[in-house]
Amino acid sequence: MRKVAIIGAAMTSFGEHWEEGFRDLVVKAGIAALEDAGISGEKIDAGYVGTMSSGRFVGQEHIGALIADYMGLNPIPITRVEGACASGGLALRQGFMAVASGMHDIVVVGGVEKMTDLGVSAVSDILGGAGDQEWELFLGATFPALYALMARRHSEEYGTTEEMMAAVAVKNHKNGAKNKYAQFQREISMEQALSSKVVADPLKIFDCSPITDGAACVVLAPLELAHSFTKKPIEIAASAQASDTLALHARESLTSIKSTKIAAEKAYKMAGVKAEDIDLAEVHDCFTIAEIMAVEDLGFFKKGEGGKAALEGKTALDGEKPINTSGGLKACGHPVGATGVKQAVECTWQLRGECGERQVKNAEIALSHNVGGSGATAVVHIYRRV
Amino acid sequence: MRKVAIIGAAMTSFGEHWEEGFRDLVVKAGIAALEDAGISGEKIDAGYVGTMSSGRFVGQEHIGALIADYMGLNPIPITRVEGACASGGLALRQGFMAVASGMHDIVVVGGVEKMTDLGVSAVSDILGGAGDQEWELFLGATFPALYALMARRHSEEYGTTEEMMAAVAVKNHKNGAKNKYAQFQREISMEQALSSKVVADPLKIFDCSPITDGAACVVLAPLELAHSFTKKPIEIAASAQASDTLALHARESLTSIKSTKIAAEKAYKMAGVKAEDIDLAEVHDCFTIAEIMAVEDLGFFKKGEGGKAALEGKTALDGEKPINTSGGLKACGHPVGATGVKQAVECTWQLRGECGERQVKNAEIALSHNVGGSGATAVVHIYRRV
Repeated sequence: MRKVAIIGAAMTSFGEHWEEGFRDLVVKAGIAALEDAGISGEKIDAGYVGTMSSGRFVGQEHIGALIADYMGLNPIPITRVEGACASGGLALRQGFMAVASGMHDIVVVGGVEKMTDLGVSAVSDILGGAGDQEWELFLGATFPALYALMARRHSEEYGTTEEMMAAVAVKNHKNGAKNKYAQFQREISMEQALSSKVVADPLKIFDCSPITDGAACVVLAPLELAHSFTKKPIEIAASAQASDTLALHARESLTSIKSTKIAAEKAYKMAGVKAEDIDLAEVHDCFTIAEIMAVEDLGFFKKGEGGKAALEGKTALDGEKPINTSGGLKACGHPVGATGVKQAVECTWQLRGECGERQVKNAEIALSHNVGGSGATAVVHIYRRV
Repeated sequence: MRKVAIIGAAMTSFGEHWEEGFRDLVVKAGIAALEDAGISGEKIDAGYVGTMSSGRFVGQEHIGALIADYMGLNPIPITRVEGACASGGLALRQGFMAVASGMHDIVVVGGVEKMTDLGVSAVSDILGGAGDQEWELFLGATFPALYALMARRHSEEYGTTEEMMAAVAVKNHKNGAKNKYAQFQREISMEQALSSKVVADPLKIFDCSPITDGAACVVLAPLELAHSFTKKPIEIAASAQASDTLALHARESLTSIKSTKIAAEKAYKMAGVKAEDIDLAEVHDCFTIAEIMAVEDLGFFKKGEGGKAALEGKTALDGEKPINTSGGLKACGHPVGATGVKQAVECTWQLRGECGERQVKNAEIALSHNVGGSGATAVVHIYRRV
């Protein structure tokens, strides 16, 4: 397999885009990524796009062809990939394989979702499609409810407190305030987080990621050609994916995401690095408890100590392991299909040293972790400065 | 890139499955394919599944994880791929690349759709998501209407008649009558076809493929390992995909599908064969006019002579170029996401010589052609006996 590099990375701002449609967002991120890579559309050989539920959000499937059309990239093959909220990460993985295999040289990978055109209850219903509809959502469980079960159990087993969860939100809002692409560019206090409205006990509104519109895009090339396009190529040193049961009740544990652990193990092996070598990570904090479990399952902290790590500032920008420098899903926003690609964009920018106020010093190796549903899919990528 | 072979192939019967759900169909096809390959689940390294609109048909996204779960294949990565009615073909292409790249050895590729749980107008609305919703479907065009425009123009330019289109339906029903997996296992007469109800003039009900439930599955392996699993591996000699504009009005021609022509050209080059070398083909006859255009665009017949070829029996089982031996989308049925994989199943069975009454004698090379929407995506595979 050939080595693969990111030669361009860009995103739209995340938020409520009332004056831009699904297509506008896609094109905006795509063109910005091509400009960042310094290449024109004719150089592109193929594309992948992650989107979770465009059929239900905007009535449109066949997003691959739509993007080829609206980006003026016909007749190249562009393929949509879906794995719920991990759709973006899976699209990146397909793009990686297409280049690694030698099938294609220059590949664009996009992620997009336009969620705010519908009301909250419709969105909640659609997001339910990421879980096990027949055993969970049709019976009344919502995603906050599923993660609340995990939070309760985590508290029970490890003494994780509401303050620890709130600390994740406070930290991610602090990072988001330094990111001009973030949906929420403002800090919140611990008190605000703790006194916010309960969504699914013990999760409050500030424990939950928002409903968001947005798109992100990276351009991939074989590493051996990457320096002819950019001075700062970022190698994708590993790409790994794993699965677990769709429904929560069938899992071995409620306090650990098995798919994350397996994907991480594979990724570390593929990249030849260990958890301690990772300088920063974008992890899937759809809820604050999800970030706490992620930093444990990825091996950054011992099981049960993820919440304490946040409370003690270990995952802050200037901590020992900066987590979600972009603001994460919590503050940067979570347009579901775009998130996995946005994580790759943030990692690329960090490793290039372009993150300004939120830059992690001397970052050389980064990791992104994208989860589908309540953990039935997890995908982990590791990036390296070359 | 490594060479890739199909070592197992199976499908459910296509039709109205009132007593089986989406999950049942997937598992049934998957287990049958594993049995056909003579392997157990532990040997599988990864999977891909094509489904067009499970979110709207059955309220469930995240189909990759669902299949890993219900097939007992956790924790391997399974990824859903979507390109409207070409979803199955695109899933096959991703599986092909995953094996070719060396990333995975044994890969399952499934296709599935459960369409009959909803009424016709809901299904029609959902299928609209394969075209350009904003410019076509929201304005009142249905898929039969779009293909009717192509049929009218084809008649105008090349003198294609309603009899010629009906001949496609009569031929495909004749083949379907010999296929125990087909939705319609009965022959129809030219008179029945011509006197059937008009759907979108000049297309009548017998010019249209039906609404169908079903699933299909193939198992892939590196060609070098294939003989250790089966006596009759079938090589996937080529896999090519191309795109065109999503909306019909933006095309250069209404009588030719450009994406088909480009994908076919690439596929012939990749396999080192010519159109005349193909012994049989499964082509995308979502409407009879679509088969007529396909046999022209694939280079089997000169432009404008596809209709005449059907009328003269050239595409019949005993003709010079047997087309849609399975019965095609028309008679075998069209569970949209499953169709591309079912085409691969039929080609495999034909090349293995297992098709009984509908067997094409001495078949050595086969081709499948799967189209998304009105032609915005096309994917062509070429299979060879080894």
